[in-house]
Amino acid sequence: MRIIVAGGDGFCGWPTALYLSKQGHDVAILDNLSRRKWDDELRSNSLTPIATLEERVAKWKEITGKDIPIYVGDMCHYDYLREVFRQVNPDAFVHFAEQRSAPYSMIDRDHAVFTQVNNVTGTLNVLYAIKEMAPDCHLIKLGTMGEYGTPNIDIEEGYIKIQHKGREDILPYPKQPGSFYHLSKVHDSHNIMFTCRAWGIRATDLNQGVVYGLDTDETMLDPMLVNRLDYDGVFGTALNRFLIQASIGHDLTVYGSGGQTRAFLNIKDTVRCIEIAANNPADRGEFRVFNQFTEWFSVQDLAERVKIVAEEQDLSVNIAHIENPRVEKEDHYYNAVNTNLLDLGLQPYLLTDEVLRDILSACVTNKSRVIVDNVMPKVSWK
Amino acid sequence: MRIIVAGGDGFCGWPTALYLSKQGHDVAILDNLSRRKWDDELRSNSLTPIATLEERVAKWKEITGKDIPIYVGDMCHYDYLREVFRQVNPDAFVHFAEQRSAPYSMIDRDHAVFTQVNNVTGTLNVLYAIKEMAPDCHLIKLGTMGEYGTPNIDIEEGYIKIQHKGREDILPYPKQPGSFYHLSKVHDSHNIMFTCRAWGIRATDLNQGVVYGLDTDETMLDPMLVNRLDYDGVFGTALNRFLIQASIGHDLTVYGSGGQTRAFLNIKDTVRCIEIAANNPADRGEFRVFNQFTEWFSVQDLAERVKIVAEEQDLSVNIAHIENPRVEKEDHYYNAVNTNLLDLGLQPYLLTDEVLRDILSACVTNKSRVIVDNVMPKVSWK
Repeated sequence: MRIIVAGGDGFCGWPTALYLSKQGHDVAILDNLSRRKWDDELRSNSLTPIATLEERVAKWKEITGKDIPIYVGDMCHYDYLREVFRQVNPDAFVHFAEQRSAPYSMIDRDHAVFTQVNNVTGTLNVLYAIKEMAPDCHLIKLGTMGEYGTPNIDIEEGYIKIQHKGREDILPYPKQPGSFYHLSKVHDSHNIMFTCRAWGIRATDLNQGVVYGLDTDETMLDPMLVNRLDYDGVFGTALNRFLIQASIGHDLTVYGSGGQTRAFLNIKDTVRCIEIAANNPADRGEFRVFNQFTEWFSVQDLAERVKIVAEEQDLSVNIAHIENPRVEKEDHYYNAVNTNLLDLGLQPYLLTDEVLRDILSACVTNKSRVIVDNVMPKVSWK
Repeated sequence: MRIIVAGGDGFCGWPTALYLSKQGHDVAILDNLSRRKWDDELRSNSLTPIATLEERVAKWKEITGKDIPIYVGDMCHYDYLREVFRQVNPDAFVHFAEQRSAPYSMIDRDHAVFTQVNNVTGTLNVLYAIKEMAPDCHLIKLGTMGEYGTPNIDIEEGYIKIQHKGREDILPYPKQPGSFYHLSKVHDSHNIMFTCRAWGIRATDLNQGVVYGLDTDETMLDPMLVNRLDYDGVFGTALNRFLIQASIGHDLTVYGSGGQTRAFLNIKDTVRCIEIAANNPADRGEFRVFNQFTEWFSVQDLAERVKIVAEEQDLSVNIAHIENPRVEKEDHYYNAVNTNLLDLGLQPYLLTDEVLRDILSACVTNKSRVIVDNVMPKVSWK
């Protein structure tokens, strides 16, 4: 299968590109290297020292003999995207190429508008490119479980049957996203759903939970293939951030009470979910939604899990409840369905203490790279 | 009350500005004159000969003694919007300033992206301007009944109580919009709802039906105050378009079977609904949704109503069922709630034959201005 991985230089995209390549697919990476530029803007870095994209794919070629052509350019430029479609003629388009940080989107008006315009325009461009250049191409789009927010009923996979005043319908699940970033994903979902109906696009929207972990079998083949790992207050997410905080003796920064419950998965499951979606494409005109996570935890639970594992390694860990920079419920119902991917064969890696120890070990190895000033959250929702 | 009417040079905005001014409010118009530019782009025109914005407000001043300062500029330029907020310090911001044609948004990729970026950015800018410059200002935002699509259950006003697996919650009503334009309004609604929660913005989202009519008491005071009237395949909407077609002996262009049912209201009710919303502001943090329409009709029903009235005037009328350029259900359930505005005192003007005759009469008066080539739809959803 010919697969474009857009955003293939990022935290999820890079290991996905390698995994799909290893599985025998013809993978091409499309990326504008934005993620590296945002590090520069925020004076931040990846905990792990990452090679350039050129070095990465050259090393992959050296080890495996497999080519991953790279297209460095911006999906928001439609002529460029069309040219990539013309050269690759993809069977599937895996779309990670968005600004994916909630705090980044909340920095100020410029960042909010940038996030929404960038994400919405890029996705509209992909939809037009598929329509015009490759109508059978399967769009595999990364959404987020954060699109749903925290309703007081069970979260279904994209749709919900509603009985109302003696009638019933299956309708898009109501969305209550909690940042301009999460909103951009909701906008994308609505846009994609419409084009499936109007143009017969085939699309799978993967509402992904918070991803943790670092390595996959492929990224571990050589230090040049290492994945990036974010810990700063803008791009670092819970669990990975706690593990890095533990490794440098920083307080684990739980926002508010820590009762916020979120869905999680290991990066090793991200890459497999993408392949499962690619191998089982949506029908023409189908807008299919998979909730892509394996477990859920409260933030407080995660901090406590990290504390136990870290203390076994003789690290001293303190859980600090800091003022919540976000506007979100800290005590809420959470029960989400995730059966679609399991039904298609996903065998989850669950969050064991061994998994935590492995990530912690990578953190400790690289801890000298941490810029401590970046760890605390500086962006407020208010 | 100090009220900014953004989009105050357009079909809804202009009569709204006059009506609010007559009621004694201090009205300022913000407009980038886009609507006139789109006429140029499409080589189209208003059926009625409209004066420049400067001429319009000068005439209003001459007749009534009331000033309506005008700010000609683009809300997407945040510095400009901030400056308008600084000068006006509004109590309410009435937001009509969006690209509002579904066919225009479906012309091609450029128009789709323009519509969404323009509408989403403008609204994000207003939200930031309110937060930073006038936190008590009430945002009165024009949405559309088209955000809901045609679900097989009753359409409620913005929210719906859902019982699911033994639990219940009141959630945002699911949206199934049918064009990139309608999608842009759904994006706006989600963005506004979030800022009400996160920042305490007070907002009323008016999900307006299709507006028909031309005159209000204020626009009839002088020919220089006449409202614009659209009939072309891009900006013309059902009913107004049928009346103009009848006036020039053109077939009434019913798309497909004509079973599509939509909510409608008279432009005279639009202006009153805006004042009702302004006089009864949402609370801080409240995202309030009103369905702003008075009746619903199928497209076929409207064509038949027009035919009867036109034939009484000795006009020869043929109803033509042309291929539907849109992707939409032509046979569907439709039942929508509109009690919020009625409860606040709206006394609707209903669609009587006399109303039809009055609009038809204005159409006949101006029929020499019709550019016949523009009447048929040329934009396809496919």
